[in-house]
Amino acid sequence: MSTTLHWGIIGPGRIAHKFADALAYCDHNQLVAVASRSQQNADAFASRWQLAHAYDDEAALLANPQVQAVYIATPHNYHYPAAMRALKAGKHVLIEKPACVNAAQFARLCELAEQHDCMLMEAVWSRFLPYVAQAKQWLADKRIGEVQSIQSSIGIAFEHGPEHRINNKALAGGAMLDLGVYALSLSQFMLGQSHTAIQALGKLSADGVDESVMATVQYSGGQLAQFATSIVSQQQNALHVYGSEGTITLEPRFWSGSQVSLQRGDDIQTLTLPWAHNGFEYQIEDMARCILVGKRQSDVVPHRDTLAVLTQMDEVRRQIGLYYGDEFEKV
Amino acid sequence: MSTTLHWGIIGPGRIAHKFADALAYCDHNQLVAVASRSQQNADAFASRWQLAHAYDDEAALLANPQVQAVYIATPHNYHYPAAMRALKAGKHVLIEKPACVNAAQFARLCELAEQHDCMLMEAVWSRFLPYVAQAKQWLADKRIGEVQSIQSSIGIAFEHGPEHRINNKALAGGAMLDLGVYALSLSQFMLGQSHTAIQALGKLSADGVDESVMATVQYSGGQLAQFATSIVSQQQNALHVYGSEGTITLEPRFWSGSQVSLQRGDDIQTLTLPWAHNGFEYQIEDMARCILVGKRQSDVVPHRDTLAVLTQMDEVRRQIGLYYGDEFEKV
Repeated sequence: MSTTLHWGIIGPGRIAHKFADALAYCDHNQLVAVASRSQQNADAFASRWQLAHAYDDEAALLANPQVQAVYIATPHNYHYPAAMRALKAGKHVLIEKPACVNAAQFARLCELAEQHDCMLMEAVWSRFLPYVAQAKQWLADKRIGEVQSIQSSIGIAFEHGPEHRINNKALAGGAMLDLGVYALSLSQFMLGQSHTAIQALGKLSADGVDESVMATVQYSGGQLAQFATSIVSQQQNALHVYGSEGTITLEPRFWSGSQVSLQRGDDIQTLTLPWAHNGFEYQIEDMARCILVGKRQSDVVPHRDTLAVLTQMDEVRRQIGLYYGDEFEKV
Repeated sequence: MSTTLHWGIIGPGRIAHKFADALAYCDHNQLVAVASRSQQNADAFASRWQLAHAYDDEAALLANPQVQAVYIATPHNYHYPAAMRALKAGKHVLIEKPACVNAAQFARLCELAEQHDCMLMEAVWSRFLPYVAQAKQWLADKRIGEVQSIQSSIGIAFEHGPEHRINNKALAGGAMLDLGVYALSLSQFMLGQSHTAIQALGKLSADGVDESVMATVQYSGGQLAQFATSIVSQQQNALHVYGSEGTITLEPRFWSGSQVSLQRGDDIQTLTLPWAHNGFEYQIEDMARCILVGKRQSDVVPHRDTLAVLTQMDEVRRQIGLYYGDEFEKV
């Protein structure tokens, strides 16, 4: 392959701009095409980022042989069909989180990725951030002894109307898929184990999405991870890893911060580890590196972790009575 | 009645000394007797607090007509039989938390209290503290809008050996009854509602007690309260009440602190409201006031709240597989 990876973006919304900004920062990566359902939106995005190709049709982008990798940045319910088509077209795929609406969809994508010899990764950008890497290193070094449990919250009092994606059941909205996924994915990342039990209680909004959820996951080593998530209240948004000899805390905004602290008794060490650019650059560089050396999944966001988190979210949704409907959950 | 309430203490351990210290601070309350299983311990306690009566037998204390009210400060499993005998002897009873090992026991004590026209209260001293009263006032004033949820943790890395009360199943040890009770009782106090669902996951120690528990309670208004508790890891030990317009936080050590904060957007107001003495004085004064005016339960710790919390703990223990045995759970 060329030493420069050529990217296309499907879904030129807010998150796509952030991705394009990060990609422009990364050597050996180039954004060349965008597809939207609206030619006007595609043109505006292409103009902003100086792209050669702007399509009002995802198929046209996938038919462009110059595009090697695709970043899918649509609302959640479009991730699966878009990723499926991209893999069938032989493109490497990075999907914004959550990778799919449910675990069965992602399992099918894993099959397709293997069949078509494509890299497939969920864009859990937080896992790559320097302060999260520092927390992982402290855990590996047993600086807090044996890990006992994790407690976190991720709640934002959005004031969007019912038509907004986050409140819209027809766009697979709600707290779990948008916010709770970070708590589950980072807990999974810290513990590196399979789950053995899940419990969830939640409250659905008048619009039918989960506005508040509290859940606990038990892992195979007996560790517990508990989190709260909400789209109607501002929460602490910290993540604490409690060990037998201390605590590691990521805060504020544990999923997109730069600060991590290690507490042992009364001694607290706090490190601020900023991002190189806007934080998305690390996942882009990891994806490109994997492709370059012929890997088809990332060690940082392996398929099994994405599957585990989606399986956990499926069970949380089952327990709180949230099903998005056959149209969006089909495989 | 005399305007001075005369007290006896059963179980002269560490907590009894704290209680005696607070009682000495309170006008219109006087400690006159102590009972222990050991005459030596009773004598030492009586000498320290200049008490007229020191017994090696609880029955002797209960037979003393001068004793009007009894504070039960034994290990948990002795609360119920001691309180039962005290009520039958016509004494007003304040029982260290948890009031009993299970809800059925406390329901029986409520019957006895009514039959014998005695005041009965669980010593949930935290509910009376000034900073908790401030939090309740902010809630009543809707300063954080509609309450959505509560998240708390109460974990202390004890380093006691297996023989210590906290690790000893034969003394009804473990995290829930000793620590988790505060999270449940203060959540109940903040929300003032009945529960509709409870979920718990936990890990039992080699000694058979709960060393870590994570649980969520759903209340009748849809609110959720989630907590973590542990006797093997130091936790954050904060309690956050999340509302639609802000957050109220009790920290550090939400059950025995003096600091409370109100956050609305970026605006944070923090108040430090110290105790008059050691914090136990408020429950003593409330008990004496209730008795003076002929009340038989406290508005701050009503029987229904103690029953609710014990019912929640029964369900938590059932889900994590912790039963102390017929000897201690019998009614």
